[in-house]
Amino acid sequence: MKIWEDENFYIEKHDNQLPWLKLFTKTEYKELSQIPKEQKLKMYEILDTIELTMLEYYKADKINLASFGNMLPRVHWHIIARFKNDPYFPKTTWEKPVREFELELPSFEIFKNKLVQKL
Amino acid sequence: MKIWEDENFYIEKHDNQLPWLKLFTKTEYKELSQIPKEQKLKMYEILDTIELTMLEYYKADKINLASFGNMLPRVHWHIIARFKNDPYFPKTTWEKPVREFELELPSFEIFKNKLVQKL
Repeated sequence: MKIWEDENFYIEKHDNQLPWLKLFTKTEYKELSQIPKEQKLKMYEILDTIELTMLEYYKADKINLASFGNMLPRVHWHIIARFKNDPYFPKTTWEKPVREFELELPSFEIFKNKLVQKL
Repeated sequence: MKIWEDENFYIEKHDNQLPWLKLFTKTEYKELSQIPKEQKLKMYEILDTIELTMLEYYKADKINLASFGNMLPRVHWHIIARFKNDPYFPKTTWEKPVREFELELPSFEIFKNKLVQKL
């Protein structure tokens, strides 16, 4: 589900119970080093804004960032708010969960609105 | 094993058969957004240099980057050269391997020297 876009980027909500966003470049680049410098600087600013908003709103214990692209060979970032009692912690969210999902998280809609205001 | 350092950063080789490096900031920051801007720009330049050197030297099919820090809550990046026939592909290297390690990769020492020259 797309929640924000500008001329060069868009953000999707990942289908997961954790606060988990994906940032895509509109032009398809295979590797990060192929992104033009100006766009790359903007991309890292967007990642910082997402991170700071997740930390402030969700009081996350840690933010995880990853750019894999093995299945979908185009640059996209995963940005995930992690909590010490989330299903995977301290493992990555790509591994098997070690506990049930029992977090009570505030509304994603409000988070989305706060984020979009900052972007 | 530390393979390079300057005043703000150092790079370690991760203990894995794949070309897998870790980039640390010398000052311990918990989250990426806490790193001073000048240092952050330098950090992303180093990541690009590692990525480009891995792509050129190893002819990697994809570069994976990740900053988790769940177990070790200080900023550090994983930079991994991935190959379509590596043990985990197309999954992440945090998941269970799906095949044996059968890659014939060129010398890490030569890669290390090429990288250090560029940094």
